[in-house]
Amino acid sequence: MSAAPKHPDLCWEDFVPQRVFPLGTVTMGREEIIEFARSWDPQGFHLNPAAASEIGLEDVIASGIHTLCICSRAIVTELLGRTDNLPGPEAERLRWPHPVYPGDRIEISYRPTSRRRTRSRPDRGLVLGVLEAINQNGDVVLEMKLKSFIKLRD
Amino acid sequence: MSAAPKHPDLCWEDFVPQRVFPLGTVTMGREEIIEFARSWDPQGFHLNPAAASEIGLEDVIASGIHTLCICSRAIVTELLGRTDNLPGPEAERLRWPHPVYPGDRIEISYRPTSRRRTRSRPDRGLVLGVLEAINQNGDVVLEMKLKSFIKLRD
Repeated sequence: MSAAPKHPDLCWEDFVPQRVFPLGTVTMGREEIIEFARSWDPQGFHLNPAAASEIGLEDVIASGIHTLCICSRAIVTELLGRTDNLPGPEAERLRWPHPVYPGDRIEISYRPTSRRRTRSRPDRGLVLGVLEAINQNGDVVLEMKLKSFIKLRD
Repeated sequence: MSAAPKHPDLCWEDFVPQRVFPLGTVTMGREEIIEFARSWDPQGFHLNPAAASEIGLEDVIASGIHTLCICSRAIVTELLGRTDNLPGPEAERLRWPHPVYPGDRIEISYRPTSRRRTRSRPDRGLVLGVLEAINQNGDVVLEMKLKSFIKLRD
């Protein structure tokens, strides 16, 4: 993927509050969970079922940063890549309410919650929204409140 | 790295508010920035200097998730790996106040801000703290407020 599209097919006007944008479903593999943790988050409960069991988990669990990477790729390829957006300066909140186990199938979505024009950048609008991932049992495994600056159509 | 150490050398008692734990310094390479972005955050301004220039940046910038992964590895290998801790359920705030450019040298640290014992887990204590990365010019490039559950010494 290269620059932001010159003629994005999604603009600020399309980010209607409460509209749900489905971003795909990903199955988290055991090898992938362990490999990611080895690179970025080498804690026992991500690497070793025995260590996970010691703190009451059924198996290794994915690093929260891994789940975040998966969700980040989904929102970029399925949504932000279709807009002309600026780098997001912050996330207000990031939660992992339920662990992700090997074999879990997570469904990712994004939902704008509010939006407004900004004085500083009249060609762009601010969108606040929630990036969310839910497992096959309906448990929320990641929730992140994001700020995005998206180009206006007009 | 395997399970949490049976005899951790750092316990909840050591997480004194405002004590600064240095977690090392990392230089962010151009190839590494682009490779990470290609895998997890394929936006133009992370991949392509021309796309970055279009939005007023001097060069490509690292994905915020990449900087987060670097800081996550540092806190795990330098600090949490020396404790017996539980998976952290949330981050209250995550900010990237200043971009990270290729060649930037970032200094990572962690500072507990407050702590308390918990009724639900008498063998562990809650620590609230700030994970921070600062570049060679003193600009904060990442700030994350974290919750950790660390085993008590006694």
